[in-house]
Amino acid sequence: MTDIEFAFSSQVDLKREMADDDYVLEAMLVSTLKDDQVQKFQDADKAGKINYLMKWRHGSPFEHTFFTFRVEAPIFVFREWHRHRIGISINEASARYTVLPGKFYCPPATRPLVQTGKPGNYTFVPGTADQYDKLLAEIQENSREAYARYERLLEEGVAKEIARSVLPVNIFSQMYWTCNARSLMAFLSLRTKRDAMLTPTGEMMEGDNEMVYQVNPNGAMFPSSPQWEIDQCAQAMEAEFARLMPHTHTSFVQNGRVAP
Amino acid sequence: MTDIEFAFSSQVDLKREMADDDYVLEAMLVSTLKDDQVQKFQDADKAGKINYLMKWRHGSPFEHTFFTFRVEAPIFVFREWHRHRIGISINEASARYTVLPGKFYCPPATRPLVQTGKPGNYTFVPGTADQYDKLLAEIQENSREAYARYERLLEEGVAKEIARSVLPVNIFSQMYWTCNARSLMAFLSLRTKRDAMLTPTGEMMEGDNEMVYQVNPNGAMFPSSPQWEIDQCAQAMEAEFARLMPHTHTSFVQNGRVAP
Amino acid sequence: MTDIEFAFSSQVDLKREMADDDYVLEAMLVSTLKDDQVQKFQDADKAGKINYLMKWRHGSPFEHTFFTFRVEAPIFVFREWHRHRIGISINEASARYTVLPGKFYCPPATRPLVQTGKPGNYTFVPGTADQYDKLLAEIQENSREAYARYERLLEEGVAKEIARSVLPVNIFSQMYWTCNARSLMAFLSLRTKRDAMLTPTGEMMEGDNEMVYQVNPNGAMFPSSPQWEIDQCAQAMEAEFARLMPHTHTSFVQNGRVAP
Amino acid sequence: MTDIEFAFSSQVDLKREMADDDYVLEAMLVSTLKDDQVQKFQDADKAGKINYLMKWRHGSPFEHTFFTFRVEAPIFVFREWHRHRIGISINEASARYTVLPGKFYCPPATRPLVQTGKPGNYTFVPGTADQYDKLLAEIQENSREAYARYERLLEEGVAKEIARSVLPVNIFSQMYWTCNARSLMAFLSLRTKRDAMLTPTGEMMEGDNEMVYQVNPNGAMFPSSPQWEIDQCAQAMEAEFARLMPHTHTSFVQNGRVAP
Repeated sequence: MTDIEFAFSSQVDLKREMADDDYVLEAMLVSTLKDDQVQKFQDADKAGKINYLMKWRHGSPFEHTFFTFRVEAPIFVFREWHRHRIGISINEASARYTVLPGKFYCPPATRPLVQTGKPGNYTFVPGTADQYDKLLAEIQENSREAYARYERLLEEGVAKEIARSVLPVNIFSQMYWTCNARSLMAFLSLRTKRDAMLTPTGEMMEGDNEMVYQVNPNGAMFPSSPQWEIDQCAQAMEAEFARLMPHTHTSFVQNGRVAP
Repeated sequence: MTDIEFAFSSQVDLKREMADDDYVLEAMLVSTLKDDQVQKFQDADKAGKINYLMKWRHGSPFEHTFFTFRVEAPIFVFREWHRHRIGISINEASARYTVLPGKFYCPPATRPLVQTGKPGNYTFVPGTADQYDKLLAEIQENSREAYARYERLLEEGVAKEIARSVLPVNIFSQMYWTCNARSLMAFLSLRTKRDAMLTPTGEMMEGDNEMVYQVNPNGAMFPSSPQWEIDQCAQAMEAEFARLMPHTHTSFVQNGRVAP
Repeated sequence: MTDIEFAFSSQVDLKREMADDDYVLEAMLVSTLKDDQVQKFQDADKAGKINYLMKWRHGSPFEHTFFTFRVEAPIFVFREWHRHRIGISINEASARYTVLPGKFYCPPATRPLVQTGKPGNYTFVPGTADQYDKLLAEIQENSREAYARYERLLEEGVAKEIARSVLPVNIFSQMYWTCNARSLMAFLSLRTKRDAMLTPTGEMMEGDNEMVYQVNPNGAMFPSSPQWEIDQCAQAMEAEFARLMPHTHTSFVQNGRVAP
Repeated sequence: MTDIEFAFSSQVDLKREMADDDYVLEAMLVSTLKDDQVQKFQDADKAGKINYLMKWRHGSPFEHTFFTFRVEAPIFVFREWHRHRIGISINEASARYTVLPGKFYCPPATRPLVQTGKPGNYTFVPGTADQYDKLLAEIQENSREAYARYERLLEEGVAKEIARSVLPVNIFSQMYWTCNARSLMAFLSLRTKRDAMLTPTGEMMEGDNEMVYQVNPNGAMFPSSPQWEIDQCAQAMEAEFARLMPHTHTSFVQNGRVAP
């Protein structure tokens, strides 16, 4: 029986990219046939033009960019990830073609474990040490037993594609995931946790045309509440995005984290 | 502890549709501004026109149609299903929002269990009774134990979204899946098993311009080798497709099962 | 020489649909395996649930719906229309396969003719009667001459696909355009004219966490400034959308006209 | 009045790329967790593996690649181009935001002008010198007059977006167009002219299971009949594709020019 491995986090690596604020500007400027003038712009002009695109939701110029990530994450994270369909490409390890290695995800001690609130308005808070210990024990024992069954079935001559039936959704898989800056922003807007950017402090009365809003500069125009594990991955991707396309990233944040 | 259920097949139901060969023709005929003349055509004319579209790969007229299926299948089948991105829509049961019922997939006795051949050229053949018995025992015991752990974790107060880590990929899930006739053909071309339609009986020699092909009228221009479980679902969908759009289906088959 | 026709508006007809707020709810409720309970909900519950989806940007349940429009509009409008790629299907009259009828678009007298403001911040205001008369004369004369050339070239035996080179972009074309409620909202959010919903009345100071906003209930979270002619078409489509899916439409408007 | 320019061809330039057969292989090999072994493969192995993907229609590995073209072509060509929706991104000169330069397309003398055959089965043959002269004269005169009207309307103060109504579809526009190798192959399969690869030399009789086919190695599994002008552009793109991804291109051709 093979030893199995437990890991407490997913892994996201930027494998390849062709992403730069200038490519956005170049594609924008073809609309006025000035795409050869990108180099002449000052940095502040570049920021302003990109912000204009974001604010008016001219999304297509952000698509002429390219990121390929290599991701290792548990299957239940990939299940959420693969719901994104537009402007993205996926190749993943196949349990039909290869024996999946015995590496399983366990939540780290910092992972909030308990859900409070009512349907449609959850928050997650830390569990007790006892809850965490029991969770870890169940997950690890379950992983070990399932993988032992998997190996027994393979030895028995059962095809990989059906033997995998016993594997739990915390087993790790690996994939290449390619996107552009626009589809990446769509992913980040849903898969990073954010509260509302603007919260009204009262109700509008008949005849009113003004309203006081509480402003949360770290918030989003539309709040988002992803699973903790995919948020961890999204944060790693957002860091790469901010590094490679700083004007685009700043503008995305300031305009409320809605993909243009 | 809740009793769990074992099921030996997936379930595909056509929930809603707006699909008809005439809609294809209408969309085709707007290209010559004759879309109001669909009713005048004889059945043979309709078949001929649809075959013309298929042969010349005019795919867009097939998109003005609509099928919503409700599918209940194990997670490992949905994992393959959700790789299809174009022209399709998905909503699925969420193990973040609801406790998944304890219903698990077991392969039926007729399911080929043993893979033979070399990488890239597999076939599947029946297993022995002993192999099947062992497989069934492992899968059922694994399902029972995993679901018992899941319930213990939920009782312990652990959030659904993390308690689900212990569930195996043979647990059933449910979804609504919407497509059009073109995206359905793309699905069927990859997810139903077919051998090659044309197999050359020799090699072309210098100067030759003819070749004898063995013809398999049930084959496909490009062979396909899907997992048995998703093929079962695809067959149920193909039956509905053939019933609702008989000319389109016939033409799809005769032109080698390549989506236009 | 064939007489040509001038028309002062485009034409949008809903040809076929399968669109209902209940289909959205059904697809939403499969996430908690309660999709069979849609009929039990009161109207207010339905409104609340759909608003929840819109606010949290759960966009996929809106996709299990279907609208086919038949549109007659000038080519310069179709040029903008066809930039929409996601969740839509198009079949259009082909000037390769058919002789385009001599029907040409002329702006009506109510169409604002003069652009004021600076790049990136235009508005359009009415022209003078003289400007309109000159415009109409140029457009009509141009259409007549171009169509006469087109007919001469066809008579000369030149292929339709190359003879069309002389036709101006105000010639009418016709298409079938199919979408779902989500892709329709994406279209409407960009192709109907709206000012900003929220305008800050001052600047945030260091330490502030509140801000007074002027509220325009007819506005959009992100303002939009489409060409007048496509806005006219979009308004006709929005009326059908509001009629068929009233809760979804209301929620779209109240949440700032951003497609979920 | 501004002088106008006539051009007899479109222009396609590869502006930026990240495209290599090795990226395809890497994405393929993650399915068996061997993506780090690409460098070890011999060239013949690479060719074989890529051919395997093409033959079995595993299309996704070809998507982790990136091409941005800058294209200058007449509007009637862009009208066809923009029907491609999947895996592509477009930014084009906007006649709302900028005055279009007076550059117009004229067919060169080598362009076949006359369409023969019946509906659904056209071919194009050369026109007479007289036909060409008349065509050229009409197109050039039409372009000149239309552009003069356009300039008069702009001088009159009419907004660019409505003044453009008089411009014919042979005026040049410019765009950035981004795709991946898979969406490029879909484009090439439809937009390069090809006859059938396999033509049956007889009819299958009851009981037959063999058939003699005439083989055209330059043909396609599904024939294609694009407009001459877009085919010229597609050929330029195919040359870049073949240069950057030689194994993928060879395999695309040998498998009948169907995008996987």
